[in-house]
Amino acid sequence: MGDDERIARMTAVEPVMQIRLRPGMSVGELVEEMGRAGAYNGGALSRAAGIYEDMLRDDRTTRFFGLAGAMVPAGMGGIVADLIERGMIDVLVTTGANAVHDIVEGIGCTHLHGNIASTDNELRGMGLNRIYDVFLPDDAFLRLEEFLRDMLGDLPDRQVSISFLLRRIGEELAGGILATAARHSIPVYCPAIQDSILGLQIYLHSQSRPFILDACADMKELLDLCYAAERAGALLVGGGVPKNYILQSMLITPKGFDYAIQLTGDRPDLGGLSGATLDEARSWGKLSSDAKAVTVYGDATITLPLLVAAVLERLTHG
Amino acid sequence: MGDDERIARMTAVEPVMQIRLRPGMSVGELVEEMGRAGAYNGGALSRAAGIYEDMLRDDRTTRFFGLAGAMVPAGMGGIVADLIERGMIDVLVTTGANAVHDIVEGIGCTHLHGNIASTDNELRGMGLNRIYDVFLPDDAFLRLEEFLRDMLGDLPDRQVSISFLLRRIGEELAGGILATAARHSIPVYCPAIQDSILGLQIYLHSQSRPFILDACADMKELLDLCYAAERAGALLVGGGVPKNYILQSMLITPKGFDYAIQLTGDRPDLGGLSGATLDEARSWGKLSSDAKAVTVYGDATITLPLLVAAVLERLTHG
Amino acid sequence: MGDDERIARMTAVEPVMQIRLRPGMSVGELVEEMGRAGAYNGGALSRAAGIYEDMLRDDRTTRFFGLAGAMVPAGMGGIVADLIERGMIDVLVTTGANAVHDIVEGIGCTHLHGNIASTDNELRGMGLNRIYDVFLPDDAFLRLEEFLRDMLGDLPDRQVSISFLLRRIGEELAGGILATAARHSIPVYCPAIQDSILGLQIYLHSQSRPFILDACADMKELLDLCYAAERAGALLVGGGVPKNYILQSMLITPKGFDYAIQLTGDRPDLGGLSGATLDEARSWGKLSSDAKAVTVYGDATITLPLLVAAVLERLTHG
Amino acid sequence: MGDDERIARMTAVEPVMQIRLRPGMSVGELVEEMGRAGAYNGGALSRAAGIYEDMLRDDRTTRFFGLAGAMVPAGMGGIVADLIERGMIDVLVTTGANAVHDIVEGIGCTHLHGNIASTDNELRGMGLNRIYDVFLPDDAFLRLEEFLRDMLGDLPDRQVSISFLLRRIGEELAGGILATAARHSIPVYCPAIQDSILGLQIYLHSQSRPFILDACADMKELLDLCYAAERAGALLVGGGVPKNYILQSMLITPKGFDYAIQLTGDRPDLGGLSGATLDEARSWGKLSSDAKAVTVYGDATITLPLLVAAVLERLTHG
Repeated sequence: MGDDERIARMTAVEPVMQIRLRPGMSVGELVEEMGRAGAYNGGALSRAAGIYEDMLRDDRTTRFFGLAGAMVPAGMGGIVADLIERGMIDVLVTTGANAVHDIVEGIGCTHLHGNIASTDNELRGMGLNRIYDVFLPDDAFLRLEEFLRDMLGDLPDRQVSISFLLRRIGEELAGGILATAARHSIPVYCPAIQDSILGLQIYLHSQSRPFILDACADMKELLDLCYAAERAGALLVGGGVPKNYILQSMLITPKGFDYAIQLTGDRPDLGGLSGATLDEARSWGKLSSDAKAVTVYGDATITLPLLVAAVLERLTHG
Repeated sequence: MGDDERIARMTAVEPVMQIRLRPGMSVGELVEEMGRAGAYNGGALSRAAGIYEDMLRDDRTTRFFGLAGAMVPAGMGGIVADLIERGMIDVLVTTGANAVHDIVEGIGCTHLHGNIASTDNELRGMGLNRIYDVFLPDDAFLRLEEFLRDMLGDLPDRQVSISFLLRRIGEELAGGILATAARHSIPVYCPAIQDSILGLQIYLHSQSRPFILDACADMKELLDLCYAAERAGALLVGGGVPKNYILQSMLITPKGFDYAIQLTGDRPDLGGLSGATLDEARSWGKLSSDAKAVTVYGDATITLPLLVAAVLERLTHG
Repeated sequence: MGDDERIARMTAVEPVMQIRLRPGMSVGELVEEMGRAGAYNGGALSRAAGIYEDMLRDDRTTRFFGLAGAMVPAGMGGIVADLIERGMIDVLVTTGANAVHDIVEGIGCTHLHGNIASTDNELRGMGLNRIYDVFLPDDAFLRLEEFLRDMLGDLPDRQVSISFLLRRIGEELAGGILATAARHSIPVYCPAIQDSILGLQIYLHSQSRPFILDACADMKELLDLCYAAERAGALLVGGGVPKNYILQSMLITPKGFDYAIQLTGDRPDLGGLSGATLDEARSWGKLSSDAKAVTVYGDATITLPLLVAAVLERLTHG
Repeated sequence: MGDDERIARMTAVEPVMQIRLRPGMSVGELVEEMGRAGAYNGGALSRAAGIYEDMLRDDRTTRFFGLAGAMVPAGMGGIVADLIERGMIDVLVTTGANAVHDIVEGIGCTHLHGNIASTDNELRGMGLNRIYDVFLPDDAFLRLEEFLRDMLGDLPDRQVSISFLLRRIGEELAGGILATAARHSIPVYCPAIQDSILGLQIYLHSQSRPFILDACADMKELLDLCYAAERAGALLVGGGVPKNYILQSMLITPKGFDYAIQLTGDRPDLGGLSGATLDEARSWGKLSSDAKAVTVYGDATITLPLLVAAVLERLTHG
């Protein structure tokens, strides 16, 4: 590199501004301040807001949303349902666990803030199932099983896809992610659905009826969606199956993702996909070579509400 | 608590011994030293060796092994195949990614130590797919697809279970996890198999043939295994689908796991199952109330070989 | 525990509310939503806001602030200076690195948002010193050395305390943490000051002059502050020397901290103090047995602005 | 890059070998297997062994050792003392905490393996101070204070350096790091010594006697050591003050470190020095541009004994 280029490069960079906070400032203003500081994950979050805004403003873009982790028990499901309601998610990929906890709330049960003075064996005795500092009473699972038995009993006696099943479930629920997705005809894919209490109930149902859950049946619809996508963007909350399933979906087309945001608590050096950088995804062609992409490392119970509230503000006021 | 009990409790505790290393010491001796020190994850690893030894010596125990993360590209697949060969794994649950990379090696391709001076866009241009510091050339995927097309063409035209498919694949391979499992008739479950390149090939195959991969068909066999298990133990490498699928499997019986070891790089405070403590699993009844259980936090490319080499030494020399 | 108590305990717990975001909502409103969800680190952050609010409203409380990590280069110094300005910090403990970078900005140099397309050897060639994604040009250090030489030349020829030195430095600066602390007569302690470029300059100065930096001279003032404190609270950003120095300071009095908030990216299982839980500090008596305390795991470039903006809003509007 | 160069680059890379374990294998053999696998932190650990072996075999090299974290309470102090004994450490930099716990053991007290069924408030009542899963009884601190009062009483009434003080303490101890360092005249630097119980005792002593602990007095000796070093190498356990103090020490010479190994549980994306990559240190000139350097992420209670045992084996048998 020549000296001129070097200097140009150096002078192009922006100064770090010391953050100034104001009482009553909006979330969008806070994230803007984080961007003026611009460093580490605070800077990344601000860049994520810019990319997510671009992705949502770009009408040619099919928006994928990946939801892993125990996000529904942590109250993050409301954000996802709201994004579907606002037309900001075109394809949702999630886990059996998030589906189960969404159904649990959709049939009227609630997760509880945990009081962790008790040991886990004591909680077991009290019929409380723990997810870090959230408790779910056994009763919720009894009601879930009852609901599923009834619901599955109404299904046709044939092979169905996972997204078909989740849509039918969503149609029966009062609110939540699956209910909102069903109402808006947004497909919900859940490749590892059998890795959840849903799986057991489906199995029990299939023992007495000629019912088959076809593992790969969703692939056709997903392929069609990918081929039809002029451009593609992904917001990935956590890693796991949703992250990989979304990123690999575009591999079957000549294109890669044009926008990608990852909110993860994992780390790259362990080699697992959940913590892998989005740059790594460029080597596979999962992201296009000039994709706008950023990873924000941290707990999504903080980064997701912050990101989405800031972007909603920009889209509304901007 | 009375003073007597308090004193008894205090005098029962062991002193921390400063570690002494000797040139040429065996891995088992090193892990023993770690146990005499006994603190943090070094102490946990030493306790894990004790629990794993007990679990392997206890003939009444059905041994589950969960393999998540990108462990095969990192050379950890050899340990798993060896444990199957030695009769130390009764049930294996893994991910589509580990299955794919195991097949890739089984058909004669190799993963490469990465030279990360290149950017990911450059790697893309060179046809190298990156997994942290491991590269897999595009060519491996071409050969994989060819292998799968041939193999799938020989399958019966009907619905099959995921474990049936993986066994048939294993029978065609020269070596590796699937090959060894097939040879020893060890079931390999892979609930999210469609979240991998396997899934796409299976879908393509099913387009021209009346072939269905039944998502829940493995449940019956797994339930039978769980009911038949007098006692149950689990070694969980990484979290993800394998961890949950294994732990939830015993929920359908009146029993929980009696032994459980978790090697994970995740952390509990993010709420995700991958980093959740094994104590949390007690509240769900996934572990029995008096289960011997320990979590070792760290990269499994270090903790898994260390743990297994130490336990093999104990079982052979002990 | 009897059934009644068990039920009381269960009914006392609050339900997890799914988060609802509104465009233009204030940071305080967002943190309130996080509290209604209440799980994982989002829940912890909301509890931290409650504790910090209580601590700032409680006039009997001496407020300690610990600043570790490379927070000034990341633009977080503005928040600390602002809190001093608002009278919300009584004692500041920080690191040599934060002091150095605060001086660098105070004499008019700026940190730059890094463009990480260059290798570190290339950056070296360009005279850019990297702190993750922040760059500081060599020139800043030349100007720093010049400033320090002049400033030290004006100091008395005798032994001085570290806080005396930092106050004198602050008096010479246009703005930033040290300048604001000096203006408001807030003591700044920095036990490991020699572990920074400051140390080298002080050493060089002491070679030609009878000048001694007395490592323990600040102890008397700190002890007096601790004994005088009716109640004590601490906001700890990162761990390191500031965290321990603050927490151990109250050990010399019969009291412990009554309020404590820790924002850290570390984790407890490695045994280091930086990631240690605040509960662990209760065993040492560093926290009083009924202290209100919470740890928020995550990057402080996100959690610190979020926490402080929310609490400023509560104090202003509440 | 031309095609030839591209191919050369690709063919130069080594294949990942699946790990093979043998009962009774030595630690050196295990680390060699990890190197043949070569991925993630297992691969990094094997490269660290190669670099540490080279550094120890290279007689022109001055070897620095940085010891942060609560390593002595975890039993890792024995490894450090042993390396000093074997002549493999020329300069040690550590924390006040490690010094305090080393003295505690040197005067005959012991740390205990913790039984964490008790809450921290209960431990407080029992006089047990907790460090994750290690307990230290209050009695140890009483004996420590008594020892220090006596020892300090014998010191000259003048200003002394921190390393002078630690050497005098080491001379009074039966065993451990400080004792071994004193016996072998290895300097121990501890910039933040006042951030520990030592600091308080020194302060109390200085109240009644004209005794000053000179914060910067060690700088001259350290500068001389750095200038005299033909080549320099560093093994850094944890980050904190020791890591920075060591790495910045060579900045005052025209040279940088030629070898550097970092064992850390931190992560780079938070911006803190403890988790910063060693590549970042190249931009500062702390490492020479062609330095051999590697970071192993993980708990040092696992990685340190593994690394050192493997290298001792190579040096003895190789």
